[in-house]
Amino acid sequence: MSKEPNTVFVGRKPTMNYVLAVITLFGSGDTKEVTLKARGQAITTAVDVAEITRRRFMENLKVERVNLGTEDIPMQEGGTRSVSTIEITLTKSS
Amino acid sequence: MSKEPNTVFVGRKPTMNYVLAVITLFGSGDTKEVTLKARGQAITTAVDVAEITRRRFMENLKVERVNLGTEDIPMQEGGTRSVSTIEITLTKSS
Repeated sequence: MSKEPNTVFVGRKPTMNYVLAVITLFGSGDTKEVTLKARGQAITTAVDVAEITRRRFMENLKVERVNLGTEDIPMQEGGTRSVSTIEITLTKSS
Repeated sequence: MSKEPNTVFVGRKPTMNYVLAVITLFGSGDTKEVTLKARGQAITTAVDVAEITRRRFMENLKVERVNLGTEDIPMQEGGTRSVSTIEITLTKSS
């Protein structure tokens, strides 16, 4: 899952770790687009990562699109639990 | 601020309160569009509200657009703190 190119999976680490990951991806080769993916409480962190990267570090970035979704996670007790997801795609306008 | 028509401000109440607010707005008159607004940790709740309303209650809804932003909140100690915001606009395709 973490093999998708130009994708940063946002979880429970400090926000700045993911900001750095985004900046590093954009700095490598000719990357024009990076997608942040998160689910559950990490959705807020993903939005923070997009906003902090764009406002403080790379003012030529823009939010190209935002997709919302739902995943069904199997539970140990059986059955599934629904969790919301977000995908934020950032593009570099150079 | 809560006077904006067809806008639901998502905060710390239970998710289903906001789902009900969205359904009620769409049920009244000829509302074609409802916007969810949230900031900070409530961003995740806003995404949950959009997904639950769309998947469980009104399958003719679609996410028309999602805007991300940042607000500077004045702190008691002076200075400001930045907080991320989201606006999710839902439309009824009837």
